[in-house]
Amino acid sequence: MSEIKDKSIQVFLDELASKSSTPGGGSAAAVMGAQSAALTSMVCNLTIGKPKYEEVDADMRSLLVKSEALREKMTGMIKADVEVFNRVMATYGMPKSTDEEKAARSAEIQEALKVATEVPLECARACAEAIELSREAAEKGNVNVVSDAGVAVMAAYGALKSAALNVYINVGSIKDQGFADSSMAELEKILEGAGVATEEVYQLVKSKL
Amino acid sequence: MSEIKDKSIQVFLDELASKSSTPGGGSAAAVMGAQSAALTSMVCNLTIGKPKYEEVDADMRSLLVKSEALREKMTGMIKADVEVFNRVMATYGMPKSTDEEKAARSAEIQEALKVATEVPLECARACAEAIELSREAAEKGNVNVVSDAGVAVMAAYGALKSAALNVYINVGSIKDQGFADSSMAELEKILEGAGVATEEVYQLVKSKL
Repeated sequence: MSEIKDKSIQVFLDELASKSSTPGGGSAAAVMGAQSAALTSMVCNLTIGKPKYEEVDADMRSLLVKSEALREKMTGMIKADVEVFNRVMATYGMPKSTDEEKAARSAEIQEALKVATEVPLECARACAEAIELSREAAEKGNVNVVSDAGVAVMAAYGALKSAALNVYINVGSIKDQGFADSSMAELEKILEGAGVATEEVYQLVKSKL
Repeated sequence: MSEIKDKSIQVFLDELASKSSTPGGGSAAAVMGAQSAALTSMVCNLTIGKPKYEEVDADMRSLLVKSEALREKMTGMIKADVEVFNRVMATYGMPKSTDEEKAARSAEIQEALKVATEVPLECARACAEAIELSREAAEKGNVNVVSDAGVAVMAAYGALKSAALNVYINVGSIKDQGFADSSMAELEKILEGAGVATEEVYQLVKSKL
């Protein structure tokens, strides 16, 4: 089966809408995050080399390297979400006839849930970075495409709040309280900062239109 | 050239990131909106026919018809954004040597700007509807996939705030003050209601995780 990123947008949307559990919200969040990074890259690409923006040329080249790396990371997360979902489902299907089987199954479920928490948490971290990259694009980039930096920040914020839901779901079933608490604490910190940052970037974009 | 929706996600993201002005933020917003509708459809498809959800079966079937119609509309908006951008650019390139040419060019620019305002405003209206559809999915749908309704609402909200930026840009150059004022008034009303609605749906989803 081909990777999701190699499917057409139409086919991806059809599969998203279908009664198959995957791809689901986690993959949709990753697509939004990748769109955010791509739009920041677009602002860079339409600023670099323009005489009017010579002063920020080096900054925009450096920003482009970061946004393209982030886009690649986010694109990889489209399938990562499906993989962790399938792994969790597989562990729930493990045999549980004997005490030994039950213990092995339970351990595997807990391990899979940790991965299923870490993947959307990593997506949330990447989204927070995408918000900051869009801020630099909005501040220094070609003003003719500043609205694209505004779309970038909203796509990243939507992806972040979406990824958060997948962290919440999985954390709720994790028995390792230390892992659960530290994941939640990190997520809440990311969300708090990102909400404020998103509003700042959006208002900056609006003021430049 | 093939339609954007028929390109792979990877190719779409590559073109979004490139120094070509299209596709840009407007198309990205439409993709987010289409993802929102698709996720609401997914919740419906994973609820319909399940004995546990028999009471809401008819509602979910009716919701699915609406979300699929909305998905088709949003998918069509992916290319509509490119078309209006190209039309505006073409009018700016019209000859302006004589007074007659100047008048004709100015009239065409104004007409194109009205379309370029109406297209993202229609996207904003569709996003507001997508938010309400995600609310019904969150309220009545299979609780095992309620997080997908949460992603649906965040995708719709991101798309709405993004579409709003494209309305602001074009309205600023429109000389027909009545058209400009009524477009802005409608947009602000949509934004106000949608901000509150999005928070309500997101909190409802969180409470059901």
